[in-house]
Amino acid sequence: MRKAVVLLSGGLDSAVTLYIAKDKGYKPLCFVFDYGQRHRREIAAARKIAQAAGCRFKVLKIDLTHKRSALLDKHLGLSKHAIGSIPATYVPARNIIFLSFALSFAETLEASAVFIGAHAQDYSGYPDCRREFFRAFERMSKVGTKSGVEGKEIKIFTPLINKRKSEIIREGLRLCVPFELTWSCYRGGRRPCGKCDSCYYRAKGFRELGIPDPIFRDTS
Amino acid sequence: MRKAVVLLSGGLDSAVTLYIAKDKGYKPLCFVFDYGQRHRREIAAARKIAQAAGCRFKVLKIDLTHKRSALLDKHLGLSKHAIGSIPATYVPARNIIFLSFALSFAETLEASAVFIGAHAQDYSGYPDCRREFFRAFERMSKVGTKSGVEGKEIKIFTPLINKRKSEIIREGLRLCVPFELTWSCYRGGRRPCGKCDSCYYRAKGFRELGIPDPIFRDTS
Repeated sequence: MRKAVVLLSGGLDSAVTLYIAKDKGYKPLCFVFDYGQRHRREIAAARKIAQAAGCRFKVLKIDLTHKRSALLDKHLGLSKHAIGSIPATYVPARNIIFLSFALSFAETLEASAVFIGAHAQDYSGYPDCRREFFRAFERMSKVGTKSGVEGKEIKIFTPLINKRKSEIIREGLRLCVPFELTWSCYRGGRRPCGKCDSCYYRAKGFRELGIPDPIFRDTS
Repeated sequence: MRKAVVLLSGGLDSAVTLYIAKDKGYKPLCFVFDYGQRHRREIAAARKIAQAAGCRFKVLKIDLTHKRSALLDKHLGLSKHAIGSIPATYVPARNIIFLSFALSFAETLEASAVFIGAHAQDYSGYPDCRREFFRAFERMSKVGTKSGVEGKEIKIFTPLINKRKSEIIREGLRLCVPFELTWSCYRGGRRPCGKCDSCYYRAKGFRELGIPDPIFRDTS
């Protein structure tokens, strides 16, 4: 069975991505990064999602706390769904670092693919969430790794890249993703804040499909 | 004054690279990675080199211990200067991970360059030490970072890439690099083992120039 490294964040997108990897016949190996996020809730969510999918799971601690970003620094404000400019939640080279580790894991574990749940639609301005970035990363990895040089290419899959949030949710419903376990909010309270970029797009997605978000059912 | 992130390893090559960055008029910000190397001596060496050059210095701890490599695992043998094949000391995607962090630091600290002391001559088979890899990484970073998208490119400098070890040493002598502080040996005893790949090439370099390696003067 082909193995794939799947990057989980605890959010809805990466959970759907995990189930897509399974659906494509891969054996997923799940990784979540502990990088000093504003709250720990998303790591706990990622663990539950991996368990529900019956997959191996590892937390990798990395030090990104030197960076000024609203995702890491509680004193900076969280931007309000600004589209087209790069928001305060941008963490310099975050996906580049995440994919580098994923590639390293994949090479070590002899996985032939890496799955990441980034998407460019509902695009919030992150340069490292665009298709052209992932293609450039793949080209770089082909010349910079043993497996690439030996012709055993590690493919970077971004199955959500062109999907709108509502399409991602529809795909998740088809694959029976346990949405009630996912956590999208940039804040870490008992219930999602409903105000940050991430809450805004999630709510919009469920609204467009005309169905309730099960996270509100389960935490009420 | 333009800032540059310089990756130090404690070895001779990265020390010469640091002095080249200074010579080019950059203000170097030095980073060394603590990634579970076989011995701690190289981190201590990197610190002394940065101090001698009067530069800021930071150790960044990263978890690479899941990987099978002779550089990390004391139970694996260290290869004997095999040229052309990829040796047991290869750590999957190591330079990709290192450069990703360097890029992230550079973006955060508003540095316009990253210096890394890799070289392809005396080439020991690492795919991530080749010029084509560094160019591919630079192209990827241009599309995957805020600074790249905004046209403030972060350049990856590999000033040693085409140099032989003896040429690197000659350049270091010109720039007054304190070679006695550098540590190249893959093993971590009081004196270099003289047998590993790294010792072999270092000794060969000094021999070609007809001068003694000051490391033997200082540790005797």
